[in-house]
Amino acid sequence: MIEAAFVERLRAELTALGAEALVALGHGPGEPDLAPFLGSARLGESFVVAARQDLPRLGYWTPMERGEAAATGLALLSPEELELTRLARENPEPDALLAAVLAAALARSGLEPGRVALAGSWPAGNLVAAAARLAAAGWSFVPGADALRRARKTKSRAELGELRRAAETTCAAFRALAERLAAATLRAGELHSEGEPLTVARLKIDVAVRFAAAGLTQPRECIVAPGEEGGVPHSTGTPERGLRAGESLIVDLFPRGRMFADCTRTFCVGTPGERLARAHADTLAALRLAHERARPGARGWEIQREICALLAARGWPTPVDAPGTLRGYVHNLGHGVGYELHELPSFKEGAGAAEGILEVGDAITLEPGLYEPEPSPSGEPGFGVRLEDFVAITADGAENLTPLPYELDPRVWLDR
Amino acid sequence: MIEAAFVERLRAELTALGAEALVALGHGPGEPDLAPFLGSARLGESFVVAARQDLPRLGYWTPMERGEAAATGLALLSPEELELTRLARENPEPDALLAAVLAAALARSGLEPGRVALAGSWPAGNLVAAAARLAAAGWSFVPGADALRRARKTKSRAELGELRRAAETTCAAFRALAERLAAATLRAGELHSEGEPLTVARLKIDVAVRFAAAGLTQPRECIVAPGEEGGVPHSTGTPERGLRAGESLIVDLFPRGRMFADCTRTFCVGTPGERLARAHADTLAALRLAHERARPGARGWEIQREICALLAARGWPTPVDAPGTLRGYVHNLGHGVGYELHELPSFKEGAGAAEGILEVGDAITLEPGLYEPEPSPSGEPGFGVRLEDFVAITADGAENLTPLPYELDPRVWLDR
Repeated sequence: MIEAAFVERLRAELTALGAEALVALGHGPGEPDLAPFLGSARLGESFVVAARQDLPRLGYWTPMERGEAAATGLALLSPEELELTRLARENPEPDALLAAVLAAALARSGLEPGRVALAGSWPAGNLVAAAARLAAAGWSFVPGADALRRARKTKSRAELGELRRAAETTCAAFRALAERLAAATLRAGELHSEGEPLTVARLKIDVAVRFAAAGLTQPRECIVAPGEEGGVPHSTGTPERGLRAGESLIVDLFPRGRMFADCTRTFCVGTPGERLARAHADTLAALRLAHERARPGARGWEIQREICALLAARGWPTPVDAPGTLRGYVHNLGHGVGYELHELPSFKEGAGAAEGILEVGDAITLEPGLYEPEPSPSGEPGFGVRLEDFVAITADGAENLTPLPYELDPRVWLDR
Repeated sequence: MIEAAFVERLRAELTALGAEALVALGHGPGEPDLAPFLGSARLGESFVVAARQDLPRLGYWTPMERGEAAATGLALLSPEELELTRLARENPEPDALLAAVLAAALARSGLEPGRVALAGSWPAGNLVAAAARLAAAGWSFVPGADALRRARKTKSRAELGELRRAAETTCAAFRALAERLAAATLRAGELHSEGEPLTVARLKIDVAVRFAAAGLTQPRECIVAPGEEGGVPHSTGTPERGLRAGESLIVDLFPRGRMFADCTRTFCVGTPGERLARAHADTLAALRLAHERARPGARGWEIQREICALLAARGWPTPVDAPGTLRGYVHNLGHGVGYELHELPSFKEGAGAAEGILEVGDAITLEPGLYEPEPSPSGEPGFGVRLEDFVAITADGAENLTPLPYELDPRVWLDR
């Protein structure tokens, strides 16, 4: 059932936009802009019309989905009520049909042509052509995704339960990886497991299998980035790359159940080099400071600035002191997590109060990292370190949903 | 590397649309409209500009993706070349930035304002607002996804290899399911496996784990629909539903590697009722006829009509004789499969020659089915039967990529 508080926040956002309604389009299951309305129902092509003065209504495309649609508890705009069969006959082109269906749905929701906030997604060509048709009939559109994102920034109790479940499975996946790494044998500096060289692909499959067994998916895959590959935060890891002793290994997992979780640890089998060990210690100090500072009322950007100050004092370039740096601390401290992997709150400098201030019920990552893409003059390879916790903001501060060890050495994990 | 034949077909499509270029937008990895251009490269926000008079160019959003972008072999519109940093500063709103980036990319591709075909997808609100900005600058947009779908209807040798690999893993998943079903024990008519009641959820997890281990994902999940749930083709199966002896069990798997595969079998543990056994025999007869008829030059709709005639002669309602029927044969015979689960060719009545005629290199499903959502007067429960092969059209006819047994009884599968 849809949360009354969410609907209230959405209405306030629509008022601020001067929009009569939100229209959110979903071209298939999994559309994050429909998720807060749909609960666990899975629909194909569907949309929500949330008029400012009314409860949200769900439109769907095929009578076969009537059961799924009814399960949402929303008021429905059924294919029969929208006369979809007739509209499809009269509008053979898909963009014309989309325009006709939306016009019928808006009229059924009691709206006259006016300004509508638009969210969700739809195939680009048909959407743009349909919007042009609706504009000719007097409708105008403003981007609505940001309004929807603000309305769903703080999570309900049920949503926090979903996030917690995804986080628990993520923790279990990390512990299994640590076990495999701890049991790895060495041959000429290369890690082996079960008699074979241990590769990025092997660990990614371990993770995928574990998530599949728990009913989670990885729509954005994951990051398993060893050594110099971990030195570039974007790198997801080359599948056939073999893992080596003494190098860093960044593992960043972000599976989805009904909602996402997000957590990163960095491993090193064997003895880390001096630069890597120092980077790890400094990253951990930054993460501990972030945990202290993440409280209701704190502004994400202010925490980011504190983290930059801590890391700069330890000799690392940061985005504050060295904008555009590709070594040291090169990214932001965190982001909200929910139906999308990256949601509000934001840790960016320009974020307004509604986007950038932490509130009770926000679910965020705290993920400082230090990167060195190039080998040192003495030959120590490039590396990356990132430690990311997934936390819920409570009245008391940050509750850690991913209480895992932080150590580089996977053997240390076994007793924790 | 991009296929020259695909580029030629795309140019012909653009000429037919009167468009100077195709713009295909991808908001994250996995956009099917970008896949034929990107090969195995995975990019986040990116787009392709394929001018009619030029080779396709790939635009991307962040310098961190330069390696992935270069791996495509396409001419690049790099963030530096597009001056993305300056454009982002000058256009703080995301829709304004998208419009500015596309305008810069079109200009860099040698184009003056004119008609452009649009494909891919992007968040709806920002896309519609960006298109309105570009329209004010003289650009006009026509839907381009269908043109792109026609250009990628026949598959290259490399693409057929990808489809074949996905099909082989799908077959292995079916054999594993058959083994579990064959080994199930009965307690009061309920199937048990490893001491626990056998549920839809258990089989779905078996499948998900197997695909994960092989590096495949299930972006559209799968169908495991027992008894009366299988009587409605849309039903994906209720997770906690326990499986029973004597009832039908439709399993429809459609995993994706770089491309999709798609295959369905129907099982029955124990003795099927008379109606179910007859429906299975008639469905199999229809599938065999479909295999015979699926040849280069055949029109999908004509094969569908022949299947309807066969099933009508055996006493079943069909869409030809009883439009809108919810029992008997209630859907179409098949569809193309590729970067999307549903592609060209089409088996629909209105499909033109470019969409509806089978050619060498097409990859299609053949999937007759018979459905009875209601119990019989004598109490035999509702059921569904669907048998779906995934085939490649060759000069010799239909090559079956999913050569699995068709039998209802999973024990028969063990020796095949």
